[in-house]
Amino acid sequence: MNDTLTRDRLLASARKLFANKGFRGATVREITHAAGANLGAVTYHFGSKEALHTEVLERFFGDLASEAERVTTAPGTQAQRLRAVVRALFGFFVRAPEAPALVLHQVLAGAAPPESILSHMRRILAVVQSVVREGQARGEFRDVDPLLVGFSIISQSAWFAVAGRVMVPALMAGTDHAVVAERIEKHISDLVCRAIALEATSP
Amino acid sequence: MNDTLTRDRLLASARKLFANKGFRGATVREITHAAGANLGAVTYHFGSKEALHTEVLERFFGDLASEAERVTTAPGTQAQRLRAVVRALFGFFVRAPEAPALVLHQVLAGAAPPESILSHMRRILAVVQSVVREGQARGEFRDVDPLLVGFSIISQSAWFAVAGRVMVPALMAGTDHAVVAERIEKHISDLVCRAIALEATSP
Repeated sequence: MNDTLTRDRLLASARKLFANKGFRGATVREITHAAGANLGAVTYHFGSKEALHTEVLERFFGDLASEAERVTTAPGTQAQRLRAVVRALFGFFVRAPEAPALVLHQVLAGAAPPESILSHMRRILAVVQSVVREGQARGEFRDVDPLLVGFSIISQSAWFAVAGRVMVPALMAGTDHAVVAERIEKHISDLVCRAIALEATSP
Repeated sequence: MNDTLTRDRLLASARKLFANKGFRGATVREITHAAGANLGAVTYHFGSKEALHTEVLERFFGDLASEAERVTTAPGTQAQRLRAVVRALFGFFVRAPEAPALVLHQVLAGAAPPESILSHMRRILAVVQSVVREGQARGEFRDVDPLLVGFSIISQSAWFAVAGRVMVPALMAGTDHAVVAERIEKHISDLVCRAIALEATSP
C-alpha cells in the first residue's frame, strides 16, 4: 500500500471504531488491524492516537459542512432548502452521535474545539445564514437573526443525537427510537419554517 | 445544630460548591466546612459524597419543576404561560449549568438519570404539555404534539447553558455572554410561540 492509501484506510477504520467504542474504547491495535496496517502506522501517519482522533472529527465536520453546502444548491424554495439542511445535520448527528458527543465532552471540560473544527462549524452556520438571508430577500422569511435560526437547528439536532438514545426510553417507555428520530427531524423543520415564514403556512 | 438544620445546610453548601467546582472539584472538607458541620457529617447524613450529589440534583430538578408549575398559574394567555415556562427553565439552566451538565455527563456514559430525577423531568414535561393542550382547547395553538414542544424548549435551553459559555466566544468573538443569553431566551420563546400559534402573530 502507498502512504496516502494507508492514511485514508486508517482514518476510515478509526472513524468507525471511535464512533462505536469512543476514543478510549477503540485501541490503536484495532484501528491498525482493521486498516490492514502495522501497529506503528498511527504514530507514523498522525503522530498520536489523539491527533488521529482530532483529524477524524475534522473530517466528520468537514464532510457535514460540505453536505450542508451541497444540499442547498438543489432547486426549490428557501424553506425547502432549510429543510434539506435540517435533514443533513440531523441525519449526520443521529448516524454519528459520537461526533457531537466528543465535542460536548471537550465543552463540558471548558475547552473549545480546535480551530480546524470550529472553521467547519462556521461553514455550517454560514450555510444556514445564507439560506435564511436569501429567503428574507425573496420575501419568504420574516426579519429574524439568521444566526439564531442556526442555533435552533443545531442545538435541537445535537441534543437529540446525544441525549435521545438514553432519555427517550427513560421518559417515554415503549417508543421506537427510529420512529421518534423521524418525528423529531420533521418537528424541527416544521417548527423553524413555520416560525420564520412571512405568510402563515397551512398546518 | 439539630439534624434537619445540618442536613439542609450541607445540601445548600454542596449545591453551591458542586455548581462552582463540579462533582470532583468540590471536596467533602469544603462542603462540611461551609456548612459549619464536622467532617463526618456527609457520611452521617447522606452515606456518601455520591448520594449527597444525587440529592443535590434531585433538589435542583425538583425546585425547577415546582417553579415551572408555579409560573403557569399566573393569569394570561397560554402563549404568555409558555413564555413564562421558557423563562423559568432557561434562567435555571443558565444560572446552574452544572445541573444539565452533570445529567449530560451521565447520559454521555450511556446511563439514564435515577428515577428520582426522571420523575421531576416528567413533571416539567407535564407542565409544558398541559399549557400547550389548554392553548389548543382555547383555539390559541394549532394541533402540534405537546411533547415535541417540550423537547424544543428543553433541548435549546439546556444546549445553550451547557455549550454556550464555550461555543459562543469561540464562534462569535466579542459578544457579551449575558446579552447573548437574553437574546437566545427571547428567541426560543418567539420561535416556539410563532410556530404553534393558530393565528399569525405580528412580528
